[in-house]
Amino acid sequence: MTYCIGLKLDAGLVLLSDTRTNAGIDSVSRFRKTFRYEAPGRVVVLMTAGNLSITQGVISQIDADLQPGAEPEGPTVLTAPSLFSIAELAGGRMRNRLDRYGPGMEKDGVSSAASMIVGGQIEGEAPRMFLVYSAGNFIECEPDTPYFQIGETKYGKPIIERTISSATSLAEGVRTCLVSMDLTVRSNLSVGLPLDLTVVEAGAMRVTASRRIEERDETYVAISAGWADALRNALAGLPDVEGWLRDDNLVL
Amino acid sequence: MTYCIGLKLDAGLVLLSDTRTNAGIDSVSRFRKTFRYEAPGRVVVLMTAGNLSITQGVISQIDADLQPGAEPEGPTVLTAPSLFSIAELAGGRMRNRLDRYGPGMEKDGVSSAASMIVGGQIEGEAPRMFLVYSAGNFIECEPDTPYFQIGETKYGKPIIERTISSATSLAEGVRTCLVSMDLTVRSNLSVGLPLDLTVVEAGAMRVTASRRIEERDETYVAISAGWADALRNALAGLPDVEGWLRDDNLVL
Repeated sequence: MTYCIGLKLDAGLVLLSDTRTNAGIDSVSRFRKTFRYEAPGRVVVLMTAGNLSITQGVISQIDADLQPGAEPEGPTVLTAPSLFSIAELAGGRMRNRLDRYGPGMEKDGVSSAASMIVGGQIEGEAPRMFLVYSAGNFIECEPDTPYFQIGETKYGKPIIERTISSATSLAEGVRTCLVSMDLTVRSNLSVGLPLDLTVVEAGAMRVTASRRIEERDETYVAISAGWADALRNALAGLPDVEGWLRDDNLVL
Repeated sequence: MTYCIGLKLDAGLVLLSDTRTNAGIDSVSRFRKTFRYEAPGRVVVLMTAGNLSITQGVISQIDADLQPGAEPEGPTVLTAPSLFSIAELAGGRMRNRLDRYGPGMEKDGVSSAASMIVGGQIEGEAPRMFLVYSAGNFIECEPDTPYFQIGETKYGKPIIERTISSATSLAEGVRTCLVSMDLTVRSNLSVGLPLDLTVVEAGAMRVTASRRIEERDETYVAISAGWADALRNALAGLPDVEGWLRDDNLVL
């Protein structure tokens, strides 16, 4: 599995991915899921989940178009006029891989499902973020739900849903993504460290912060360890239910 | 779907279930998932998830054996000598229903999967709790992981996992189960109120508290509303990551 989360905040984008890939519980490896592209006036970040042969193929094709001497058929991530057209480009590549390999994989009982988060900013636009599905179709992130998740999304969803709004600061966003990831890593063995964090401040047109977070990372360890205590305190502050436990409240 | 959670604490058992059942998103109904049985020296609580025709059949058969004039072939929930043998009894009923209807349902493309939490206490034993699978096999709850979940388990799992130990009090347990349920209700439309709460204090040999929690329940509403704030405070108390956002930490 994989877990990737992207926030689209007023202050910019926060993108976090794990690096674990598995084909069965006895075949676990480490692969990068975050890919960053920068050029003057633009920054593009891709995160991938799902079948690795599909997503690696998509990224390889995107990268091949950027090589010196390449003759791309259409726009590339560095020349496309908008982030929308980059989502379209990534979706097209995804559909190509699936058209080619999907039927054979299905015959072998292997899931060819894949998805991608495409975030970034191109001069003249605000920061944008898209979720690209296997079929190449995609949706754009809007303020009502200022985040996208792909991969193993359930464990880490409630914390995001209950605390993130467009007004959340980048630092708060990073912290919340780390907790959401920590909850997922602890619940699903197929999601694992190290993590790749990317922050894109609105208007900067570049990656403003990035970090590979290893297991021994002090801040991550402290956040992970502190969260259980923080939750216990949070629970302790909720309305009390002692009255419900008294016999006079027994309703069978 | 459904969500049921059972805690086996030193102080006793806490069991919480929702009441929503659905066959497709356009066919949603309300059905009870919690069933309580008491007799001198024993208390037994069953919670069910999965295909309703299977689980209702199991409960109907268990209840039929308790009717005046019934001639049960073996022990009943009110005569079985241990909670282990009640888990075996419930598992046997489950396997019977599946043997009878499973193949036809499979042909129709309907999932016959079902599961059950069996908790309680019988005089001479400590409180015990079992998780019964479709095939009738079952596992018992142990202190290393003092809880079982069935149905839509993922959204509400991290909060339980990070805060519950055997030493947790019944009131804390109730509160944590309510938060876990609230997170699930908010994330999956097929899990819904009202909720059925059951508390079995260790040694009491009876249901010591129970409650049907409706949408307008003041305490539940306050817990649900308070949780977002509590989480935000919990996040705010975690180690800060501002340093990571400074340019000098940029590592591409």
